[in-house]
Amino acid sequence: MKIHDLQTPALIADADVLEHNLSTMTDALPGPRLRPHVKAHKTTALARLQREKGHTNFTCATIREVEGMAAVGLGDDLLLANEVLDCTRLGAIPNARVTVAVDSEVTVDAAHAGGIREVLIDVNVGMPRCGCPPEQAGHIADYARAKGLDVRGVMGYEGHVVGVEALDARVTMTEDCMKRLLEAHADVGGDIVSGGGTGTYAVNRWVNEIQAGSYVLLDTAYGALDNLPFHEGLRVLASVIHVNDDWAVADAGLKALAMDHGNPPIANGEGCDGEVWFFSDEHVTFGFPAASRPQVGDRVRLRPSHIDPTIAKHAQMHVVRGEEVLDTWEVDLRGW
Amino acid sequence: MKIHDLQTPALIADADVLEHNLSTMTDALPGPRLRPHVKAHKTTALARLQREKGHTNFTCATIREVEGMAAVGLGDDLLLANEVLDCTRLGAIPNARVTVAVDSEVTVDAAHAGGIREVLIDVNVGMPRCGCPPEQAGHIADYARAKGLDVRGVMGYEGHVVGVEALDARVTMTEDCMKRLLEAHADVGGDIVSGGGTGTYAVNRWVNEIQAGSYVLLDTAYGALDNLPFHEGLRVLASVIHVNDDWAVADAGLKALAMDHGNPPIANGEGCDGEVWFFSDEHVTFGFPAASRPQVGDRVRLRPSHIDPTIAKHAQMHVVRGEEVLDTWEVDLRGW
Repeated sequence: MKIHDLQTPALIADADVLEHNLSTMTDALPGPRLRPHVKAHKTTALARLQREKGHTNFTCATIREVEGMAAVGLGDDLLLANEVLDCTRLGAIPNARVTVAVDSEVTVDAAHAGGIREVLIDVNVGMPRCGCPPEQAGHIADYARAKGLDVRGVMGYEGHVVGVEALDARVTMTEDCMKRLLEAHADVGGDIVSGGGTGTYAVNRWVNEIQAGSYVLLDTAYGALDNLPFHEGLRVLASVIHVNDDWAVADAGLKALAMDHGNPPIANGEGCDGEVWFFSDEHVTFGFPAASRPQVGDRVRLRPSHIDPTIAKHAQMHVVRGEEVLDTWEVDLRGW
Repeated sequence: MKIHDLQTPALIADADVLEHNLSTMTDALPGPRLRPHVKAHKTTALARLQREKGHTNFTCATIREVEGMAAVGLGDDLLLANEVLDCTRLGAIPNARVTVAVDSEVTVDAAHAGGIREVLIDVNVGMPRCGCPPEQAGHIADYARAKGLDVRGVMGYEGHVVGVEALDARVTMTEDCMKRLLEAHADVGGDIVSGGGTGTYAVNRWVNEIQAGSYVLLDTAYGALDNLPFHEGLRVLASVIHVNDDWAVADAGLKALAMDHGNPPIANGEGCDGEVWFFSDEHVTFGFPAASRPQVGDRVRLRPSHIDPTIAKHAQMHVVRGEEVLDTWEVDLRGW
């Protein structure tokens, strides 16, 4: 099958960029040093490639992601890195090792009630989201152990740092965050000190596993960071359906592309060139250079500004090389 | 089943608000005066309610929406109000009347090649998107008829007007747009003059059918308009999973809520009160009034700022009254 035969809008992933990104990360963080985050791609076929690179432990953001990973045999060591109040479904998953993040007595109670046996203490390292203060981590670990739960260690996500464009700022901010995490770990114990993301995988030297996800295919937001060796590999393919003297319209809109990191730009040089004016539900209106007016039927490629929610809008991802469609993957971990 | 039993995040629709909105619109635009747009809800169960109100003709935005509506017996008169370059799937749909928008010779050729028999000439009435200039509409209609296609009339969407908050501006802008559409209709002929949306359904007196969709459950963007008699009926239900002295976190993020019309606010007075700080993939971080600190396990309801892409993120919509879940609908028209 050729890319030309795909109905649009279509999500296409460049096989060579994907391989480059996967290998580069595995070289830097082999085996258990990387706990790939499947929330970025929600695709077990892609998780299998990460497994083939030697990463047996995965990070998940939803119950559905944990269930889906276990169902395809990728359940060696699954961390649900979010707090969950009803762990019944998680506790019922067969043939998988499931560890859940907890940051309060209530979330420990929920893990215990749902039949979970292993937890990680989630520590706030500076971003205003979940995680207990470092000074409470020891108490929560004690509380969990008193319930009979195994406490495997700590996690802390420096989510306010991973997107900082300047490398030196990322380094100093990460160090500040990780001091908090190590302070908590001293009280909690356990083998695991987990954190990090695509933006800090190389500078976070304090954790013993990194939860990166976006590195697989990147996006324009991460693409703006200094010193990342990964390349953008994801596009949303669209067809030009209208052209006039002033603008053109293609058939991919905000139901096919996430808008939370700003408008995805056109990938100039990979089909029609142009500059995005605005997105509608199923359309993008764009201007074009006078010298390269598109034709109805031409293809445009859009560069996702945030891959996680973009991929989550699609049921399938097509893996391509040049004009060939090599494979079509189900995005099979969507929903909750 | 009670709302309390729903796993979060969950999409919930208020049955009474839905009934109010459906009835109010049907009273204003009975039978074929309304051609409900299913892109807003992507749910055939909801389309059936619109059918029961007497609306037999529907508007769709994607091939998948047309196929899905036909498959459940709602194919009396389906308009695909977008340009399509490969009409093969549309032409193969059994037991449905399918009309496609065209705005160029290429899109007429595509309709003809795909086995489509009826088209509407899509006219640009002021928004920079699809639609031919009014002065070309007659030519395109002639071209389509020469191919053997039935030209049923014209459509023109004043999409840049439907969201204008001030009523008087909406009225004068709509009139300007519709002069262009009627100019085109004079050249094209046919029974149908189609246009409009939720924001202009009451002021657009020039078309003979209105393509409104969002009125069914509204959103904060449409809720800001003067003089709309519809109410917000959609919420995304979330559970509070973390609370500290300064902020709280609930488990609905930007994978459960569209962000293109801005951050969805918390529905104060319908559970926890608060003010949204920011959204992550699976979280919302929010501040709360000192007097009403939430507890872990409390529920928060979020008000979608744009219902169309919000609903498209969910596989199911729960219909509720008070604390009861009356029904669970499949959002069965997702994808393309």
